[in-house]
Amino acid sequence: MQKLRRPTLLLDENKARKNLKRMVKKAKDQSVRFRPHFKTHQSTEIGQWFRDMGVDCATVSSVSMANYFAGEGWKDITIAFPINLREMDAVCELAREINLGVLVESIYSTNILDSALNTKVNVWIKVDTGLHRTGLYWNDRNGILNLVRNIYKSKNLKLAGILTHAGQTYGAKTTEEIIALYSRSNVRMLDVRNYLDFKGYSGLDVSVGDTPGCWLCADLGEVDEIRPGNFIFFDAMMEDLGVCRREDIAVAVACPVVAKHEDRLEVIIYGGGIHLFKQAIHTLSEDVYGYISILETVGFRHLPKKNFVSALSQEHGIVKLTREEFNKICIGDIICVQPVHSCLAVDLLGDYLTLGGRIIHSMNSERIKNLRW
Amino acid sequence: MQKLRRPTLLLDENKARKNLKRMVKKAKDQSVRFRPHFKTHQSTEIGQWFRDMGVDCATVSSVSMANYFAGEGWKDITIAFPINLREMDAVCELAREINLGVLVESIYSTNILDSALNTKVNVWIKVDTGLHRTGLYWNDRNGILNLVRNIYKSKNLKLAGILTHAGQTYGAKTTEEIIALYSRSNVRMLDVRNYLDFKGYSGLDVSVGDTPGCWLCADLGEVDEIRPGNFIFFDAMMEDLGVCRREDIAVAVACPVVAKHEDRLEVIIYGGGIHLFKQAIHTLSEDVYGYISILETVGFRHLPKKNFVSALSQEHGIVKLTREEFNKICIGDIICVQPVHSCLAVDLLGDYLTLGGRIIHSMNSERIKNLRW
Repeated sequence: MQKLRRPTLLLDENKARKNLKRMVKKAKDQSVRFRPHFKTHQSTEIGQWFRDMGVDCATVSSVSMANYFAGEGWKDITIAFPINLREMDAVCELAREINLGVLVESIYSTNILDSALNTKVNVWIKVDTGLHRTGLYWNDRNGILNLVRNIYKSKNLKLAGILTHAGQTYGAKTTEEIIALYSRSNVRMLDVRNYLDFKGYSGLDVSVGDTPGCWLCADLGEVDEIRPGNFIFFDAMMEDLGVCRREDIAVAVACPVVAKHEDRLEVIIYGGGIHLFKQAIHTLSEDVYGYISILETVGFRHLPKKNFVSALSQEHGIVKLTREEFNKICIGDIICVQPVHSCLAVDLLGDYLTLGGRIIHSMNSERIKNLRW
Repeated sequence: MQKLRRPTLLLDENKARKNLKRMVKKAKDQSVRFRPHFKTHQSTEIGQWFRDMGVDCATVSSVSMANYFAGEGWKDITIAFPINLREMDAVCELAREINLGVLVESIYSTNILDSALNTKVNVWIKVDTGLHRTGLYWNDRNGILNLVRNIYKSKNLKLAGILTHAGQTYGAKTTEEIIALYSRSNVRMLDVRNYLDFKGYSGLDVSVGDTPGCWLCADLGEVDEIRPGNFIFFDAMMEDLGVCRREDIAVAVACPVVAKHEDRLEVIIYGGGIHLFKQAIHTLSEDVYGYISILETVGFRHLPKKNFVSALSQEHGIVKLTREEFNKICIGDIICVQPVHSCLAVDLLGDYLTLGGRIIHSMNSERIKNLRW
């Protein structure tokens, strides 16, 4: 680690595997299918850790990501993003190769998808239980029923079930509120399922999946499938929400210290928005872009939260420190930032360096080659 | 353009060249050296446009970026980032190959840099004229003088001058305030130069460079060098500041529409934080993550500002539209987002597609391969 030169994504493999083990066990104990979201790690090597624990299906957030994992032998993948009508060729190709699931929420898209396909594909109806990002409202019974009927009339679409992302848990103030939001979302999903059952469309699966809810709720509820992703690494936001502890966070961005400002107890790091992503936790008095840890021989020492990244520009980060910590740090030292949102820092940094010194690749070295038009 | 499948960075080459031409002319007319910041475009092909207009020196924000441009024959490059002591090998190598400039702001770093080098390098003292990101305060006369004396005593360091980034102009409320901040920053820089001159250190250059100030001020002031970068593309933030007009913005991110929500007049686009970068303009009532344009046969049609990106997650964007525009847009259409900060969207997207259908590469396909430790 003494050789680190540039902002580098560090991975504590043991912590990640421990987080993974706990989620796998929870799903297994409750007989819920575990279809983890791979947008968090975007790495076939890390995907293999899931496989080694018996996981054989996955969730991704783009067609490109589905292609990447399919190329490594993943045969059962759901693209948890509204179907993009401009990628029909790639979707058709994938549907021939693997057990593909896609999301629909309009008759318009469903019809085009159906005509484009020449093989069966699983479709999930995206339901909005309160996040209001996308999907049909859970209480839009007519809208949902019309879409179901349309899918049943189609040639190539097989209705797998209804799916939601209860991301409203990210806005919760307490862990009790997370649990309540997760449960309320599930109640709404079951209401939809029961209604469709009553209308003669039975046997539909319910798929849910946000890390806060799936991690904290002792009882996953009457769902068939969970799709959390972030839990494998966690991040400062999850710690701030009370979902995990700082010692559960498995990734950190190692950043060289390039300047010190004693009068304002700040150090400048080589590590900016293009490395950490610019997302803040808003505390009472400050915007926090990451907490600080120091890499020691046996892992991380987490500095108190009064030590934090207070601003980011393209490549600079400003770190506010207590007098005690400021005095210990020299220009040229490495300090580690626990990112606010690990999925996005991982996406930016591309490759991992494990604390054991091994490089793990992700799909991001391929991203630019994917430009086609 | 009908074939666009995924979020794609579009470049209106004519607009970029027009912006470039104006800045080149302004610097030339006022006999100020133009050392443009290449972190905005990060592309040797676009760098060539500058060369074709007689520009032969450049500014970059990292050693990696300096290497990239040096590899394409750029022989005079300043790395406008506090010297990173962990990249001394690469800095030494570059200093042997090109006329390299680096930034220093402490005796500590300066001494290590001097010992590491075996050839001459130009150093600039980073001065803080009000941004308070990094650098020595302009009125810290003792600090600056001690650093100058130390550099004069060194073996391999040649003091080129003093350098600032008056990024405080980004926080201005009016164009008059931008002009005032730019001028005040220059006055402070001249104060430092005059003081050093009085102390016997004469002939030092003054280098400044923020797009708002350099673009708006009719008189660049008594400076030797300007280093703006963003002006070649501009972005929604520059338009919001009053620096440019929407029709001057040369880049946009083309995003497929994947869902529509009529009740709230929102469409969902495939285009999220990993494509547009999550930086907002805070208006009175909303956070704006980009303005909307529609690609037509002869360029862009800019929708009124009531049409904007209101939220971003990893791959989703939520776009609020007026009823009129909402009705015109279909799922599967492409809408274009004028990003809030073009430098960062460019960094994320890597390659450009010109409106003429040509792909222009940037250095970002190389980034991941640069992981060394």
